[in-house]
Amino acid sequence: MKKSLGARTLSFPLPAFLVGSYDEEGRANLMTAAWGGIVCSEPPCLAVAIRPSRWTFSAIVKNKAFTVSIPNSRLAAAVDYVGMFSGKDHDKFARTGLTPVKSDLVNAPYVDESPLIIECQLHNSLELGSHTLFVGCIADVKAEADLDFSRGSLDINEVDPIIYNSGGDYHKVGASLGKAYSIGMALKA
Amino acid sequence: MKKSLGARTLSFPLPAFLVGSYDEEGRANLMTAAWGGIVCSEPPCLAVAIRPSRWTFSAIVKNKAFTVSIPNSRLAAAVDYVGMFSGKDHDKFARTGLTPVKSDLVNAPYVDESPLIIECQLHNSLELGSHTLFVGCIADVKAEADLDFSRGSLDINEVDPIIYNSGGDYHKVGASLGKAYSIGMALKA
Repeated sequence: MKKSLGARTLSFPLPAFLVGSYDEEGRANLMTAAWGGIVCSEPPCLAVAIRPSRWTFSAIVKNKAFTVSIPNSRLAAAVDYVGMFSGKDHDKFARTGLTPVKSDLVNAPYVDESPLIIECQLHNSLELGSHTLFVGCIADVKAEADLDFSRGSLDINEVDPIIYNSGGDYHKVGASLGKAYSIGMALKA
Repeated sequence: MKKSLGARTLSFPLPAFLVGSYDEEGRANLMTAAWGGIVCSEPPCLAVAIRPSRWTFSAIVKNKAFTVSIPNSRLAAAVDYVGMFSGKDHDKFARTGLTPVKSDLVNAPYVDESPLIIECQLHNSLELGSHTLFVGCIADVKAEADLDFSRGSLDINEVDPIIYNSGGDYHKVGASLGKAYSIGMALKA
């Protein structure tokens, strides 16, 4: 039995992206974004939805580039801080102790302390209402050197990403439920 | 120290959406999608990226509607099955034992066994390359009656959604890392 909760932005899981950009004065800035994700294979693309009032908005429009740093659970307090204040008034890298590194491929900074970095060149944008969706072509993904990618994938518990819960808190990733393209085979019979 | 993994579709966490639609012959169909998420507040919108070759693609184009059923961990094998086979050849509801329910608001079916349902009317679409991004206006969110929404949010561990890991498996959501708009305040000082 289902009950109606109304037309609202509820979905699970949501990511906790740290979106990096250089503002109009060239300062490295960050925002937290939960709305976005991978949206295309060829070319590989990632999208993030941003309100025009956000400091990051004009930075992306100007530089046509952004990064997404995937934070791990040790960065949860920094993620929360970055989501509460504007880069207009706060140097969020300095306040959180995070280290900005200039991407060698796109004109945007990333967070050195994040285990995984996605560098994006603006590919397309789509005005949807309160938010504009920025679609970036992924120029490169960079991972912390100790993460094993020898089999073409990463162990999600080693990456240790943060899940943002619309309900109002952050979560770690839990136990495995089984292998993809495998646990469903039993239903084919 | 970071190492380059190349331009690829790696991001964490990814959702495991069950996208519901009626195919051109009116049959209820499902696909699994990890690429998508919430993309706008006003109007509330959710986007999913789909290849034109997928059976769901023409269904959404025709009906201008789809649903996203958020599966819980008990549905992991069904999610995996739905992601492996095409609705062209398989009645995925029958094979998984999932129950299709016609949305009262949009022309698409949802999965009765899912704890959370997002009903979407097609709002916009954007061709990106291999995938087209379908942006749906959220007409309603429906939740299982025993989920507590009295404080305007849901407990993510009660919803128990599945995280899809590009690395090749499915995961549960783990422990809380703390409250949003709270744990970052210590960094303001």
